[in-house]
Amino acid sequence: MNATLMAPNAQYQSCLDACSKCMQLCQECFRMCLSEPDVKAREHCILDLIDCSEVCATAASAMARRSFHIDHICNLCAIVCDECASECSKFKDEHCRMCADACRQCADECRKMKSM
Amino acid sequence: MNATLMAPNAQYQSCLDACSKCMQLCQECFRMCLSEPDVKAREHCILDLIDCSEVCATAASAMARRSFHIDHICNLCAIVCDECASECSKFKDEHCRMCADACRQCADECRKMKSM
Amino acid sequence: MNATLMAPNAQYQSCLDACSKCMQLCQECFRMCLSEPDVKAREHCILDLIDCSEVCATAASAMARRSFHIDHICNLCAIVCDECASECSKFKDEHCRMCADACRQCADECRKMKSM
Amino acid sequence: MNATLMAPNAQYQSCLDACSKCMQLCQECFRMCLSEPDVKAREHCILDLIDCSEVCATAASAMARRSFHIDHICNLCAIVCDECASECSKFKDEHCRMCADACRQCADECRKMKSM
Repeated sequence: MNATLMAPNAQYQSCLDACSKCMQLCQECFRMCLSEPDVKAREHCILDLIDCSEVCATAASAMARRSFHIDHICNLCAIVCDECASECSKFKDEHCRMCADACRQCADECRKMKSM
Repeated sequence: MNATLMAPNAQYQSCLDACSKCMQLCQECFRMCLSEPDVKAREHCILDLIDCSEVCATAASAMARRSFHIDHICNLCAIVCDECASECSKFKDEHCRMCADACRQCADECRKMKSM
Repeated sequence: MNATLMAPNAQYQSCLDACSKCMQLCQECFRMCLSEPDVKAREHCILDLIDCSEVCATAASAMARRSFHIDHICNLCAIVCDECASECSKFKDEHCRMCADACRQCADECRKMKSM
Repeated sequence: MNATLMAPNAQYQSCLDACSKCMQLCQECFRMCLSEPDVKAREHCILDLIDCSEVCATAASAMARRSFHIDHICNLCAIVCDECASECSKFKDEHCRMCADACRQCADECRKMKSM
């Protein structure tokens, strides 16, 4: 176990990085959405952004400590990321586009983890 | 929607309270396990306590904002709580017994939520 | 130390409960603010609600494990709760009023903790 | 504000990255400490690792959304990181050394942020 932790395999680090990046882009997109003229149309999107940020942070922490529940946590993370990407895709601004990309990438990484 | 939020139904509040209590007992049990003479035997238990605390906190927050992913989050929470209860049940001290009870109660509440 | 943990003093539990309640009311108020007609006027308030919820959750977890940094964490929590109460007080709806009350109560409890 | 968010200045990103890295190394070190032969001597260190991980995650999230409380949150983060670095420095293993380095780097970045 220790050897694995000291030399983390590429899969773990790739997914952990995707979760950290997705958390950041969700919070940035949340802030930006709040100041958009059509904020009223973004209620569902904003809620999903906060969900996605929290679940990505939980997944990143769990992977870093090699939790025994990485498969289940990454499964949830993939679901929430996919939904958030879908909501963000409804808006044309740059921050939603970038966030949707990060969500999709994170969902892909999480799907790889849950099947390990 | 607003009416529901202003007068939260009993189911939500009951599950949210169970998650908050379980988070607290997991963190207390984590602290107590660290100072037990057989701490070396508790590595798995301690890891599960941190997982369970984090997932319970995530679930409580998601329920409070009426997230669209409560079913999936509570599903994960029930799984992690059941595992944590199982680990805590291996130890005879009072804090592990109390924590296992809180985990089982939280898992039951979460199973009710995910089927709503 | 163990004796204290098994029989937590009233001060800890009172502050921990105030943090849990404040987290819940901030997330509920966040959700409600998003669907208010004047959501555009609430950008600052909504940001403070998310800050306050996150810091209250961090403080609750730290108190439950008897962290060595409760004084500093509760100091931050009191500052963020006061600011959030101030923002919520600018709006007349029930959820903002209830949230502001919970924030002020939590700030008071946190100030007692940091001076222990 | 939007321009700043779309083109985040180097200071924010540098501190946010340091917080994310410190969170990861604290959780990895937590896991490794639990399986060390002298785990009983590491109670204080393990508690600080969990504190540090949680506060770093809170700070990263707050910076990503350009919270109004970054100065206070980064001030707390610097304090907790310094303490965690000090505890980790008492142990000679590679994971504690790497974690102490990440904590010191994060504390330095946080001190720059709180004075902005």
